[in-house]
Amino acid sequence: MQKIFKRRSEKGGLPPGTLAYVGEKKVEKVIITVFDYDSERYEEKELKSIDECFPYKDMPTVTWINIVGIHQVEIMEKIGNHFGIHSLIMEDILNTRQRPKMDDMDYYLFVVLKMLTYKEEDDVIDVEQTSIILGQTFVISFQEKEGDVFEPIRDRIRKNKGRIRKMGADYLAYALVDSVVDNYFTILEKIWERIEFLEEELVENPSTQALQEIYGLKRKMIFLRKSIWPLREVISELERGESSLIKETTGIYLRDVYDHTIQVIDTVETFRDMLSGILDVYLSSISNRMNEVMKVLTIIATIFIPLTFLAGVYGMNFRYMPELEWHQGYFGVLFLMVIVGIVMVFYFRKKKWL
Amino acid sequence: MQKIFKRRSEKGGLPPGTLAYVGEKKVEKVIITVFDYDSERYEEKELKSIDECFPYKDMPTVTWINIVGIHQVEIMEKIGNHFGIHSLIMEDILNTRQRPKMDDMDYYLFVVLKMLTYKEEDDVIDVEQTSIILGQTFVISFQEKEGDVFEPIRDRIRKNKGRIRKMGADYLAYALVDSVVDNYFTILEKIWERIEFLEEELVENPSTQALQEIYGLKRKMIFLRKSIWPLREVISELERGESSLIKETTGIYLRDVYDHTIQVIDTVETFRDMLSGILDVYLSSISNRMNEVMKVLTIIATIFIPLTFLAGVYGMNFRYMPELEWHQGYFGVLFLMVIVGIVMVFYFRKKKWL
Amino acid sequence: MQKIFKRRSEKGGLPPGTLAYVGEKKVEKVIITVFDYDSERYEEKELKSIDECFPYKDMPTVTWINIVGIHQVEIMEKIGNHFGIHSLIMEDILNTRQRPKMDDMDYYLFVVLKMLTYKEEDDVIDVEQTSIILGQTFVISFQEKEGDVFEPIRDRIRKNKGRIRKMGADYLAYALVDSVVDNYFTILEKIWERIEFLEEELVENPSTQALQEIYGLKRKMIFLRKSIWPLREVISELERGESSLIKETTGIYLRDVYDHTIQVIDTVETFRDMLSGILDVYLSSISNRMNEVMKVLTIIATIFIPLTFLAGVYGMNFRYMPELEWHQGYFGVLFLMVIVGIVMVFYFRKKKWL
Amino acid sequence: MQKIFKRRSEKGGLPPGTLAYVGEKKVEKVIITVFDYDSERYEEKELKSIDECFPYKDMPTVTWINIVGIHQVEIMEKIGNHFGIHSLIMEDILNTRQRPKMDDMDYYLFVVLKMLTYKEEDDVIDVEQTSIILGQTFVISFQEKEGDVFEPIRDRIRKNKGRIRKMGADYLAYALVDSVVDNYFTILEKIWERIEFLEEELVENPSTQALQEIYGLKRKMIFLRKSIWPLREVISELERGESSLIKETTGIYLRDVYDHTIQVIDTVETFRDMLSGILDVYLSSISNRMNEVMKVLTIIATIFIPLTFLAGVYGMNFRYMPELEWHQGYFGVLFLMVIVGIVMVFYFRKKKWL
Amino acid sequence: MQKIFKRRSEKGGLPPGTLAYVGEKKVEKVIITVFDYDSERYEEKELKSIDECFPYKDMPTVTWINIVGIHQVEIMEKIGNHFGIHSLIMEDILNTRQRPKMDDMDYYLFVVLKMLTYKEEDDVIDVEQTSIILGQTFVISFQEKEGDVFEPIRDRIRKNKGRIRKMGADYLAYALVDSVVDNYFTILEKIWERIEFLEEELVENPSTQALQEIYGLKRKMIFLRKSIWPLREVISELERGESSLIKETTGIYLRDVYDHTIQVIDTVETFRDMLSGILDVYLSSISNRMNEVMKVLTIIATIFIPLTFLAGVYGMNFRYMPELEWHQGYFGVLFLMVIVGIVMVFYFRKKKWL
Repeated sequence: MQKIFKRRSEKGGLPPGTLAYVGEKKVEKVIITVFDYDSERYEEKELKSIDECFPYKDMPTVTWINIVGIHQVEIMEKIGNHFGIHSLIMEDILNTRQRPKMDDMDYYLFVVLKMLTYKEEDDVIDVEQTSIILGQTFVISFQEKEGDVFEPIRDRIRKNKGRIRKMGADYLAYALVDSVVDNYFTILEKIWERIEFLEEELVENPSTQALQEIYGLKRKMIFLRKSIWPLREVISELERGESSLIKETTGIYLRDVYDHTIQVIDTVETFRDMLSGILDVYLSSISNRMNEVMKVLTIIATIFIPLTFLAGVYGMNFRYMPELEWHQGYFGVLFLMVIVGIVMVFYFRKKKWL
Repeated sequence: MQKIFKRRSEKGGLPPGTLAYVGEKKVEKVIITVFDYDSERYEEKELKSIDECFPYKDMPTVTWINIVGIHQVEIMEKIGNHFGIHSLIMEDILNTRQRPKMDDMDYYLFVVLKMLTYKEEDDVIDVEQTSIILGQTFVISFQEKEGDVFEPIRDRIRKNKGRIRKMGADYLAYALVDSVVDNYFTILEKIWERIEFLEEELVENPSTQALQEIYGLKRKMIFLRKSIWPLREVISELERGESSLIKETTGIYLRDVYDHTIQVIDTVETFRDMLSGILDVYLSSISNRMNEVMKVLTIIATIFIPLTFLAGVYGMNFRYMPELEWHQGYFGVLFLMVIVGIVMVFYFRKKKWL
Repeated sequence: MQKIFKRRSEKGGLPPGTLAYVGEKKVEKVIITVFDYDSERYEEKELKSIDECFPYKDMPTVTWINIVGIHQVEIMEKIGNHFGIHSLIMEDILNTRQRPKMDDMDYYLFVVLKMLTYKEEDDVIDVEQTSIILGQTFVISFQEKEGDVFEPIRDRIRKNKGRIRKMGADYLAYALVDSVVDNYFTILEKIWERIEFLEEELVENPSTQALQEIYGLKRKMIFLRKSIWPLREVISELERGESSLIKETTGIYLRDVYDHTIQVIDTVETFRDMLSGILDVYLSSISNRMNEVMKVLTIIATIFIPLTFLAGVYGMNFRYMPELEWHQGYFGVLFLMVIVGIVMVFYFRKKKWL
Repeated sequence: MQKIFKRRSEKGGLPPGTLAYVGEKKVEKVIITVFDYDSERYEEKELKSIDECFPYKDMPTVTWINIVGIHQVEIMEKIGNHFGIHSLIMEDILNTRQRPKMDDMDYYLFVVLKMLTYKEEDDVIDVEQTSIILGQTFVISFQEKEGDVFEPIRDRIRKNKGRIRKMGADYLAYALVDSVVDNYFTILEKIWERIEFLEEELVENPSTQALQEIYGLKRKMIFLRKSIWPLREVISELERGESSLIKETTGIYLRDVYDHTIQVIDTVETFRDMLSGILDVYLSSISNRMNEVMKVLTIIATIFIPLTFLAGVYGMNFRYMPELEWHQGYFGVLFLMVIVGIVMVFYFRKKKWL
Repeated sequence: MQKIFKRRSEKGGLPPGTLAYVGEKKVEKVIITVFDYDSERYEEKELKSIDECFPYKDMPTVTWINIVGIHQVEIMEKIGNHFGIHSLIMEDILNTRQRPKMDDMDYYLFVVLKMLTYKEEDDVIDVEQTSIILGQTFVISFQEKEGDVFEPIRDRIRKNKGRIRKMGADYLAYALVDSVVDNYFTILEKIWERIEFLEEELVENPSTQALQEIYGLKRKMIFLRKSIWPLREVISELERGESSLIKETTGIYLRDVYDHTIQVIDTVETFRDMLSGILDVYLSSISNRMNEVMKVLTIIATIFIPLTFLAGVYGMNFRYMPELEWHQGYFGVLFLMVIVGIVMVFYFRKKKWL
């Protein structure tokens, strides 16, 4: 999350609609793959140049153009011009700091999503912006870097699994959104494992490190919430079906993704509540420990301070101290000390401190 | 709640609408029972094979097919195909991690509910997903395991009690929902008993264990809330009566369940507020105790530390210490110590610490 | 509030619409009184049997049937049957755990309210459910026990005060609701007196008992909120005047009750805020006291611990300790001690601890 | 705020619409002044009897009747009857415990506002209820006591400043509301001064008294919020212009007052947030001080307790203690003590406690 | 923020619509610059007198009049009169304490924005009110002081970059709003840097100064929120396109600014959450330190207090104390002390305090 605003301001003075990549370069080369299919046949190829994909635009078959790496502004400009995409939309695609949103541009729909991946090694959630352009017979998807989230969809197209080959471009767009949302569950699982672990850990051993991790998870939740929350509205808008690009038969599938999104948001909320709960447990167990420590100190101190005083008294060097001469003086004082100690212990018992 | 996301991700790459059981297997064998009735007669049987229930589909009488155990995908597929249920709906039935929802599919209504049961022995709330399909003349209910929540309804059908035999399939569906919602009150009662107990317990004896239980109850409330909250919308949608499957006469009954649901949600909220209140009482009584402990320590220490110092002074071994030679030196010092002690006690009295 | 769910679950398996009293029996005998009036004349009698009230149903005059004690199911059933009240409504009347609500049944309106009375002796708010059935020419009110809240209304009918005798049954129903809402102000006054008292008390003397009472009041607010909040919607629905039973002339009166209800809810919210404020003051004055105690301990301890150490040093019995032989050694050490003490005091002054 | 509910309950049993003054008498005599004007001329007089104002009712000129002191029920009744004001409205005018509201009675509009004044000497915000009746050609305003808030308006009428003489009664009503709202800014300024002062004060000198004042301001904010919040809706209703009494040209002025009201509410919210912030700063600086005190205690105690122990050891009177006989024993022990002290100090340095 | 209400009240009694500058004078001289352009040509000049700009009003070309310094009431009045701007709008322009808002006056639109600039040297966010009047062919913008935020727009006009010269006055107004909103990101970046810095700082070194800065940032967030939040509604109103002054082609650009505004608000919220998180980390690390300090004190004290007591006992001067005579008495006691110490250490180990 460190670089949220870095390039934004560097872009500051440019006129709106100027294409400029806002983000870090995450792949070396731009990779463009095309899938073109109908229920009968399919074709898959990796393009060397962006111009090769232009003929597909007006074919009646469904065409899926997947672009990995969006940092080459000239390629993006070509696509934008050829497919007639508004320069503001192109700007949004290149600005990887967008929040999830949906724009209905009549001839095409534009959807921005956040693809989240959990990097185990660094314990970090990695965000990648995924933009989808849905036209009448084509879908263009833009990714920041290669990933295997869309692989199962490719597989379904190749092997003609499920209904994907029988449906139109809108179903393909749905399938892409669905696989992004499904992927959120993987993140939530990882977080759930940490929460579960922390919960047991903290009861036995409330260390400062565990506390750090709770706060880390809390921040992740803030971050997740920010990435996922607007998605709800996006999908709800898609589902409401006001665009002629979304056929009625796809509506029920969108409703399904919508349900999943709600479920993800719901879970994020529940996790937040649970983390707060764990934190409360942690804090009160810390304060309980503190109490216990204080009690021990108090008990030891209140027992021995008076006794030490007594010993101090008979350690004074006055010439005339009658008790010092008594034969049983020493044992008398020891006995007195024992009595005082016992009385103290009983007092603490009564007060339920022991 | 531990396994919320376990199988979800294993299903990851499958195309939407693929049936796969997401959950734990809770019964060995799938049990299918059929009730078929009108106001004149009724028939009840346990089916050996799912095919036996197909003839009932088009009968004018009301048919209730209850299926316990949903882990056998092939049985589920047969039902889905025969009754014309959309594959996404079937997927939802099998995915036991759904949140409560309602889908109006024109020819049938689909309702998912959470059946909650309190397991006294483990102090755990057990969740079971209950799905209901309401068609023109049939109701199909799916349960994860056997339970006696629907038993009174069976009884009412058998003995022709109340109006159930005189009404249609929509009333039966209502009766099922109603018995699930009524069951929530039992859970709330159990929780209420614990809250009441804890409340008395904590005032007298604020132990750490009680604290743990409060936090446990708080988590249960989060969990209950999550399970019950969406139900409100579900029943409200049913009641709004936009589906032709729900007759107008059933509307008032749905309104009644709606009121009960609101009451359950209301109570959950009130419990949350009360638990927060109890927690506050607990925490401030803990901090009061701490204060008391600190005061005792402070009083003992501040009285004896100066006295011990005095004793220390006259325990020094200087050759020339005039007081040591005084005849009344010892008693004078003792007297001085008593005075200092009394002054301290008065100071504490004045400060209202004693 | 202890028995909120007790009988609810005992009723569990019964079919909906079965009449069963849910609550505690609060009066011995059911008392039925009838007022029948128009602008010319009025008649008041106490009925021996419920059948006596049936002839009033179709008279053109306004009839008010007040029933105190709803635990005799057979009486309730007779009324329900005769006045054509739906069995679910009758069930709601008997179930004293309802939340306030309004049901428009076309031929009659059904309103449930919570009558609150403050029992000074036990410092408890007592809830009683009051149900009102408003028909074309009659009002039936159900109370759990005798009370004098409706007495002024009776008086106005008897003495023809105000406009009550000139208006219809809807005005009578309004008058009943109005007197229930007006009564809430009495409760709020009592609570206000307690809050005011506590506020002064706590500043001078932050005792644990006062804390207990604040939490008690907080719980009462939760409880009040729960009882009164839904009323807002109830009266708003009545006022919106969609029912033909409510004449337009009564609308303005309902708006007035609505304003009062909002005012009650507003006040409950303000009290909650104020109680939180008082609690914060309490908690921070407790923590201030703790600080003061700690400071005294620290000052005493940090002054005397080094001095006692010094005394300890010269109390050692080494054979060769040159200072012990010095003639002014003792006074020198005493002087040193005074200096150390003064330095400490100045240090504390500088740190603003004294 | 002390007497919020005092008289309310005394009024308890009266039929709705009965006029009774609910509040404290704030002026001795009722003062009635009349302004009658059009763009050509104006007339101003103080009436001896209320009857004198009746002829103005049907004049085409704009008439403003301002009544200070509303405790004389008979005068109020006369006005109500003559101007045809509903008895419930009259009741609201006399009940000074109303919350701000607006009632559209077709022939006239009724607006209740809270006039706030800050009494510097007692540090108290004084509330006064101001009711405004807007008819076709007249405005009647009711105040509890004399004030100079309306004086600038009188002046503008007298001197024909601005557009007031050219506009109708609705503009006059607007001007009254506007001057009440403008007056809120004065209160906010006073509070702002206190907040600013407290903020600086608390950083240097976190006294208990400052804490008390923060809580006092917090309570004032609760109170302000309660008085001003409903105003938003009142003015918004006025502005929506559904009443034929408000001409379209006045709409833009109402929108202006609406903006001011929002600004007041906004500021109240901001102040609440800032007070919470100040409180947090206060509480954490208190707890920082506590920490510092504790650290000093701990450092002193942990350095000297071991040293005192060492001194104690060599103060024992055993006959055979070889060290005591050593020639350098005393200096050796002193050296040891210095070493222990230095080690301790280094330990604290390492732990960053010093 | 110190002077929010200063002049407001001084203006108190003036009739609405009276022009009076409310704010501090931020520039010496009023600077008026005019840009007049269409797609063919452009003209730029700095005016000496306001009258020079009047001829531009009715030209078909787009005219942008930028006025820096709004404290000269007579200049403002001239503009208002010539361009037919309502006196209430002029009053709003001069009152620099407005919250962001939009007024549709049919013949022109009025928009108030807050321009924020971060002054690094004082660590202060500076607010300047920017008002924009959009007419059919002209835009008038009012600034409190010179700034370079609009410079890039001037540049685009001069060099005919982007589409600005091809579009109408509405696009120019959009460009102004856009550059103000874009500027917010710069502020957010600065704040982000501080948050990031603080986050690392606080973990290692939780100083009081860092705490002060967190609270400072929190206040800045309150302030930002207050300035930016209403903007959302303003731009949403503009975008909804009900005014004929905004052409449909500009709609998509407004939607873009709207998205940015949402993003800013979103980020402000996220920052607030993060600051709360950092604060929690800070507070719990402080309390952890406190715990650690307490533990060290307790351990040292509880080990040495009993040992010191033992030493005290054998420092008593009783004539008859048998142990003193024992040959191994001294070493026995030393041994006993070591044992007691070891037992204590083991006890603390077991309790996990060491």
